[in-house]
Amino acid sequence: MKALVYHGPGKRSWEEKPKPTIQEATDAIVKIAKTTICGTDLHILKGDVATVTDGRILGHEGVGVVEEVGQGVSSFRKGDRVLISCITSCGKCDACKKGMYSHCAKGGWILGNTIDGTQAELVRIPFADGSLYRVPAGADEAALVMLSDILPTGFECGVLNGQVKPGDSVAIVGAGPVGLAALLTAQFYSPAEIILIDMDENRLGVSRKLGATQVVNGTDGKAVAKVMALTGQKGVDVAIEAVGIPATFDICQDIVTAGGHIANVGVHGKSVALKLEKLWSHNVTITTRLVDTVTTPMLLKTVTSGKLQPRQLITHEFRLDEIMKAYDTFGNAAKEKALKVLVQGE
Amino acid sequence: MKALVYHGPGKRSWEEKPKPTIQEATDAIVKIAKTTICGTDLHILKGDVATVTDGRILGHEGVGVVEEVGQGVSSFRKGDRVLISCITSCGKCDACKKGMYSHCAKGGWILGNTIDGTQAELVRIPFADGSLYRVPAGADEAALVMLSDILPTGFECGVLNGQVKPGDSVAIVGAGPVGLAALLTAQFYSPAEIILIDMDENRLGVSRKLGATQVVNGTDGKAVAKVMALTGQKGVDVAIEAVGIPATFDICQDIVTAGGHIANVGVHGKSVALKLEKLWSHNVTITTRLVDTVTTPMLLKTVTSGKLQPRQLITHEFRLDEIMKAYDTFGNAAKEKALKVLVQGE
Amino acid sequence: MKALVYHGPGKRSWEEKPKPTIQEATDAIVKIAKTTICGTDLHILKGDVATVTDGRILGHEGVGVVEEVGQGVSSFRKGDRVLISCITSCGKCDACKKGMYSHCAKGGWILGNTIDGTQAELVRIPFADGSLYRVPAGADEAALVMLSDILPTGFECGVLNGQVKPGDSVAIVGAGPVGLAALLTAQFYSPAEIILIDMDENRLGVSRKLGATQVVNGTDGKAVAKVMALTGQKGVDVAIEAVGIPATFDICQDIVTAGGHIANVGVHGKSVALKLEKLWSHNVTITTRLVDTVTTPMLLKTVTSGKLQPRQLITHEFRLDEIMKAYDTFGNAAKEKALKVLVQGE
Amino acid sequence: MKALVYHGPGKRSWEEKPKPTIQEATDAIVKIAKTTICGTDLHILKGDVATVTDGRILGHEGVGVVEEVGQGVSSFRKGDRVLISCITSCGKCDACKKGMYSHCAKGGWILGNTIDGTQAELVRIPFADGSLYRVPAGADEAALVMLSDILPTGFECGVLNGQVKPGDSVAIVGAGPVGLAALLTAQFYSPAEIILIDMDENRLGVSRKLGATQVVNGTDGKAVAKVMALTGQKGVDVAIEAVGIPATFDICQDIVTAGGHIANVGVHGKSVALKLEKLWSHNVTITTRLVDTVTTPMLLKTVTSGKLQPRQLITHEFRLDEIMKAYDTFGNAAKEKALKVLVQGE
Repeated sequence: MKALVYHGPGKRSWEEKPKPTIQEATDAIVKIAKTTICGTDLHILKGDVATVTDGRILGHEGVGVVEEVGQGVSSFRKGDRVLISCITSCGKCDACKKGMYSHCAKGGWILGNTIDGTQAELVRIPFADGSLYRVPAGADEAALVMLSDILPTGFECGVLNGQVKPGDSVAIVGAGPVGLAALLTAQFYSPAEIILIDMDENRLGVSRKLGATQVVNGTDGKAVAKVMALTGQKGVDVAIEAVGIPATFDICQDIVTAGGHIANVGVHGKSVALKLEKLWSHNVTITTRLVDTVTTPMLLKTVTSGKLQPRQLITHEFRLDEIMKAYDTFGNAAKEKALKVLVQGE
Repeated sequence: MKALVYHGPGKRSWEEKPKPTIQEATDAIVKIAKTTICGTDLHILKGDVATVTDGRILGHEGVGVVEEVGQGVSSFRKGDRVLISCITSCGKCDACKKGMYSHCAKGGWILGNTIDGTQAELVRIPFADGSLYRVPAGADEAALVMLSDILPTGFECGVLNGQVKPGDSVAIVGAGPVGLAALLTAQFYSPAEIILIDMDENRLGVSRKLGATQVVNGTDGKAVAKVMALTGQKGVDVAIEAVGIPATFDICQDIVTAGGHIANVGVHGKSVALKLEKLWSHNVTITTRLVDTVTTPMLLKTVTSGKLQPRQLITHEFRLDEIMKAYDTFGNAAKEKALKVLVQGE
Repeated sequence: MKALVYHGPGKRSWEEKPKPTIQEATDAIVKIAKTTICGTDLHILKGDVATVTDGRILGHEGVGVVEEVGQGVSSFRKGDRVLISCITSCGKCDACKKGMYSHCAKGGWILGNTIDGTQAELVRIPFADGSLYRVPAGADEAALVMLSDILPTGFECGVLNGQVKPGDSVAIVGAGPVGLAALLTAQFYSPAEIILIDMDENRLGVSRKLGATQVVNGTDGKAVAKVMALTGQKGVDVAIEAVGIPATFDICQDIVTAGGHIANVGVHGKSVALKLEKLWSHNVTITTRLVDTVTTPMLLKTVTSGKLQPRQLITHEFRLDEIMKAYDTFGNAAKEKALKVLVQGE
Repeated sequence: MKALVYHGPGKRSWEEKPKPTIQEATDAIVKIAKTTICGTDLHILKGDVATVTDGRILGHEGVGVVEEVGQGVSSFRKGDRVLISCITSCGKCDACKKGMYSHCAKGGWILGNTIDGTQAELVRIPFADGSLYRVPAGADEAALVMLSDILPTGFECGVLNGQVKPGDSVAIVGAGPVGLAALLTAQFYSPAEIILIDMDENRLGVSRKLGATQVVNGTDGKAVAKVMALTGQKGVDVAIEAVGIPATFDICQDIVTAGGHIANVGVHGKSVALKLEKLWSHNVTITTRLVDTVTTPMLLKTVTSGKLQPRQLITHEFRLDEIMKAYDTFGNAAKEKALKVLVQGE
């Protein structure tokens, strides 16, 4: 079969690879109908993710059709249309029993990382019962691809951890796909204000369409002052960090009100200076989280009921055999005005 | 009347001051029966707390008898024996309505800070209805002085924010009075292990007596390795920071397990390096809090029922007119093996 | 001044009464700008509420202007436009400190019950600091009258106690003003389905306009079967009882799914048979609540931000001196298609 | 092998049965080391549990040694010493993912009910990965048998659902094994008072030893008045029903304070009259629950740390081949002063 393969920093190719086979009784083999590319895949290609080695098939998002299941799989069978979660969950370890699938003893984020991923014609999914979700009848499968990773990420790490409540003022720093996923799902809880902060005018425009009540272009370095002005100098109840660098975390520290929440979503490569000399007495809660995808069933219901419309995040479409081009486009997101690129199998 | 007065860095005296009088309808005047000295008072004397100015009477803890109340006070009258909370609460502002009295619009920590405090024969208590608590019949008033500040501080900022649960492993960094208050109140929730970390052998010995299951002397810089060894390399569910310097916050970052809590209690003077490059994916919650004293009614019930025995924290006793000597003792806590010093009025 | 006065079962009159005066330092006198009539007022007129005695001015909802305040009132002064809460809160008792204002030691529901109420030109409001809320600049005061009682009632007793979550299926039994208030505020949490059950086609039509995804006319006694059919025989996650009779509570028992919530809002006059022989193993939570109005600040924010539009509940308007006619209309709600009647002072 | 077999109302025998075998890949066969008898087994013998049919091996509690596992079992292997949970959990269905194992689509309470149980030399455990727990090194296995059912039942249905907090007043109605399990685990949260109510003086005596602060003998029908007197007429914060008849549920309704919790644990055979005419405005929460055993890992930690000492509930010991006699003793619990009878395999 064909697959998108990583060959060390800067090198990827669309090439022939052996078909995956059942290795454990709990495995399933899924034929990919739709997949997409994640910002994390770009990080991998830069060589930033040490666990990904030469020869790895990338990708941890997708929708597909079950081709084969091991003897221990009881919830799915050949022919079932399924959503693939970016997080693999054995359902049995201490972490899984607590709903913290991200720290599953044998799973977690392994697809397109320590085992081959979804940017291929076929993929092996370990612990299929815990890691796949049935596609609801009549669902828009392109929209569902957004539920593999970015929507539960924005929702769990940003909105739930940030404890967004009706009437709250919320700021989201970073209007990339995950920041926008937080924007869409923050609206589940009817905050009074959602302020999006970014340096890209196109993304700020999209933010407005997707429900931001205010947008702030931080190019001039005055994001903090602008947010404070918008909130009558009170600051926000919830600050969601969706970039992953010290400067954006700093904005969150500076705009959160007493009693408020900083919910970190971004993947950070360095330490940040936590201003405890000010925050120690501010009754602030700071959370970090690798997505657990424990809310996937809830998110599926909100998609089915029409409360959540994730297709809005898809800006480009490609065929699976065009995935090299899809990477080019996604890799130039600002210029191409790309958010999520949908990659379609046959 | 006589009072302990701050006269700039390093200078304090026991001197004559005018008696306080009712200034607002919501004020009460309380005659001090018992008071104590807080670590914060020592910080003030070093000149570290800019809001405290020359001439201020120090002290924010105590038990006393109501001498007089303003017309707006309805819960107390002359002769009532009362516990004075270190936090003044108007009961009417947004923060008070949320139970965040520490950020009361007109109150918060003002006693012995921006208004005269409790280390005196008499003290004026603003918003008396929200800031005083009736002494339960038969209570040990010396024990209750511990409820003015350190017990709600250890409990709210450390134990409640840390979400201690039955079976948890808990580490408390710092075995001073507030760390020990966290130790006593953590036991409300039956954790499996409570590890105390300090550099003072005497305090570690006290910790054992007060319920620590393990103690770690961090003098050799190996506290992290020791805690990891004690927890089978898993780390702790809850790490409570009760010192207030970067090194102790660092220990907390290094020993907290995935899905765990860091509850900051310490008063910090500088930023700390938050290791987001590791923690971003560790599903960790970090909290800060200035005590709200919102749990004082609950703590009073636990004292009355005998579940909490705060008298154990008192190591020395002085008469009010010996308070200069009490400061000397408390200021040499390690040498004097002092925890809390009780200062008795007539 | 003129006021609507109760004179025993079936008897009310619009008559001259002495102007209220400040009795306690914490009182305010408010001139009524807008008021309304509650279903509870009709119960009083039937003689069902024993605490209401001959000569009482009725009414516990309204918006007005502060005329005078006692010396202990610090948050309001003459001329302030205020929302009057149906619940009076002293802010100092144990119940108030827990946020359970409904059980305030000196307050709770007393307006138009044990003291004179708001259906008058002027009203005395005890504990004004805790019982009034400032009208936000530019607010629609007619809409705000709905926040005196029915919106916090539907929200707190129905939606919050029912723990409505994104993706949930919710049933509301009773499409009167309080049931509709629950319908409006349930949408804060983005449930997948909200099924309204009533016997009045007009109210079911209104329910659809206000956001019900399904409506069920229970006239034929088949409401349970219909709800089960709509939910694929699973039942609902949340059943909100907004009528107050055994038959409607029964519907809730029969449609709630395992792990679900029954939130009682209705005022009941008799016991109901709780089917513990079935429910003991169904992991069900049943709640009762007299509204605390503790969410009034949150609701004000949702009105200001436009998330909540309570004016939709107003079907008729009258001048204050027409209030006898307003009662006639509201008393014939089905025939008049009345929901809430707005009564305007000068 | 030998087993205790049900043969219709009133009939049980210790007889030869075929050894169980692996039927599904997720099964395990466990050799019973220790088991016990539950009040539910007595109900079954009265013919009260329609799902239990002639020929069924009874028993849903026990500790044993794994004899054999199916290919789909990954957490256990031959020779492992295990605690058997009374609730079978597939770990994959919606209910299991929510932690509501009691309503597992394929499991729940099936052992000794719809499939053969643990009062035998060997038992087949479906979904072994989710339904067994490893015995901690050095554990007292007799004590652990109490964790199969009664301790999680008292804890989850009574203490957790009742939301017991430090300083609370708690009443437990019924001092049988489950009520005593609630008594032991309520102490995890340091309530100020725990009042046990029963009609058996022996059990009340045991209650005192196990931590009750007060006991009430309700034989004279005055339990309510006595509890109200003990609580200064305020009633209790938490009332735990651990009997399962209308009279005891009634006591709970009559003693719960405003804002309090009634946590039903008892298995009820009839409806009870819920006094909504009084409770509608009392802000009360009533919960029902079939135990989920989701807290078994937490309880194991509390046993290991010594916070929980369940052996205190064992009053009698028998060999497995004496189980007919064990039933006689347990069936005459009052006369025999029996709480839990330990039944030992070889």
